[in-house]
Amino acid sequence: MKKAGRLPVNFKVILEGEEEVGSEHLGPYVKAHAGDLAADVVLISDSEMFDRGVPSLCYGLRGLTYMQIDLRGTKGDLHSGQYGGAVANPANMLAHIIAQLRDKSGNIKIPGFYDDVRALREEERAEFRRLPFDEKAVKKQLGAPRLAGERGYSMLERMWARPTLDVNASCRAGRARAARRSSRHGDGQGQHAVGAEPASREDRRAVRGLREEDRAEDGRSEGDAPARRVSLDDGLRQRLRAGSRRALEKGFGKRPVFTREGGSIPIVTDFQAALNVPVVLFGFGLPDDNLHAPNEKFNLDNFFNGVLASAFLYQEIAEARG
Amino acid sequence: MKKAGRLPVNFKVILEGEEEVGSEHLGPYVKAHAGDLAADVVLISDSEMFDRGVPSLCYGLRGLTYMQIDLRGTKGDLHSGQYGGAVANPANMLAHIIAQLRDKSGNIKIPGFYDDVRALREEERAEFRRLPFDEKAVKKQLGAPRLAGERGYSMLERMWARPTLDVNASCRAGRARAARRSSRHGDGQGQHAVGAEPASREDRRAVRGLREEDRAEDGRSEGDAPARRVSLDDGLRQRLRAGSRRALEKGFGKRPVFTREGGSIPIVTDFQAALNVPVVLFGFGLPDDNLHAPNEKFNLDNFFNGVLASAFLYQEIAEARG
Repeated sequence: MKKAGRLPVNFKVILEGEEEVGSEHLGPYVKAHAGDLAADVVLISDSEMFDRGVPSLCYGLRGLTYMQIDLRGTKGDLHSGQYGGAVANPANMLAHIIAQLRDKSGNIKIPGFYDDVRALREEERAEFRRLPFDEKAVKKQLGAPRLAGERGYSMLERMWARPTLDVNASCRAGRARAARRSSRHGDGQGQHAVGAEPASREDRRAVRGLREEDRAEDGRSEGDAPARRVSLDDGLRQRLRAGSRRALEKGFGKRPVFTREGGSIPIVTDFQAALNVPVVLFGFGLPDDNLHAPNEKFNLDNFFNGVLASAFLYQEIAEARG
Repeated sequence: MKKAGRLPVNFKVILEGEEEVGSEHLGPYVKAHAGDLAADVVLISDSEMFDRGVPSLCYGLRGLTYMQIDLRGTKGDLHSGQYGGAVANPANMLAHIIAQLRDKSGNIKIPGFYDDVRALREEERAEFRRLPFDEKAVKKQLGAPRLAGERGYSMLERMWARPTLDVNASCRAGRARAARRSSRHGDGQGQHAVGAEPASREDRRAVRGLREEDRAEDGRSEGDAPARRVSLDDGLRQRLRAGSRRALEKGFGKRPVFTREGGSIPIVTDFQAALNVPVVLFGFGLPDDNLHAPNEKFNLDNFFNGVLASAFLYQEIAEARG
């Protein structure tokens, strides 16, 4: 605006405040207003840079499924002195169920869990290896006594592309126990896989004495989302990729790297489905921003350079769509 | 008093309100005032009857030890999208630790855990079998889909005499997880056994990636107590046993049964140690009183018959001490 007196493209701006509680209303809204929202490109600033001073273009996200395991034991709460040792304790049994979902190294044991995960291409793995990522330094920065995870993959591959299974919360109400588990799933992996029967017949015997329900959340509450990888194949998408790269380089004075991310942005898929246009992820977070944790922050350099890069990007988008 | 115009024995009455939070102050108080409290017999009404209309003399209690497992992962909370799959999740690891403490049937796998537990005498087991206890009816009453526990023991034996290991609470503070576990230990079993190293070398590898502390509570907070079985060998104790039996029979119009209990009354041991006198457990709770649970109750028949039986007991005590 300052230089040319006008914007190089038209804008339709959507602000939402529900992303952290699953974007429950944005999906249906976008679908219902697909006509009003018609556009050439969707631009989302919710991804992060590889590191301080390293502008990044994110081309892949993991998906997300939340499941809840509910266990109910007896009708009422029991005293461990009275009945301890004679009936199954849901807290003990829940530990067995959770423990059997993964082996001790972190490999997930749900049958078929990994079957549909698209393998990382060799050039991607090579590109990941070229990134200035020091596992030891990250370990130290996080204060993690040791790293852990699926065998055969680097830490970046485990974080960006390989599926996970984590217990995020557990709670109890006396006789009952529930655990919420989430799976970040990999490219190509269906949501059905992560919710698959967790157990062999032998494993199911572990929970004898308790009613078990392992159920997916209804609908898409709490951010269920399929994994997503931006297709780089058609002409517009290729021009956008090149344009985004130039815009970042101008904004930050440095050539950007290509990255994927382990997180999930459910609305990416909704926009693509409703509007059938490319989505550009153009974000400026940092790995040490303490996402959703105490002292969350946003880096001021990234804010100002990001403003600049975005201005260049609008110009690039105008040119890319021809 | 009503019949004789005087009490047959002198009373020293102690009322405490801390039993459910571990009787932290009563033990030291009794020790410090052992002289003032000197007595021939200690009488405690904190045990229960075998069933409605079945007066009972309890001669054994399980002990109790609380332990806490603390796990700390990284310095700060991590986002499962950012780091999921790359570092160990304390919630997952805690499940592994808890699961490895017991096998799927409920047998406890801590090495040496059962070593010192005094075996049930054959006559005790026979007496237990004669009690009108219907496992199926209890299962139904509790609403338990299935019973569970140590192999080779009846439900009564598992409830009254065999040691347990239960998770009673778990909580999380983002990067850290803690579980409180308690063990009701059996007669003869030292508190050291239940706190023993939970893990073989292989098991310890399960928690790699996390700092683990499995520590006993300091001091005796929250009711740590050794198991206790009343010795029936000396003369006074034998007379008290016979007298208690007669008093219950007069109060309830029915011959009492001999029982043990799975719960723990920490102060029993304190009284014995400080005063060196027999302790008589003379209580009137019922198994369906919903101890520490919603709708806890006390049966009115037991209240009135218990008053009567207690009056007879005072007379019996006067005669027993000679």
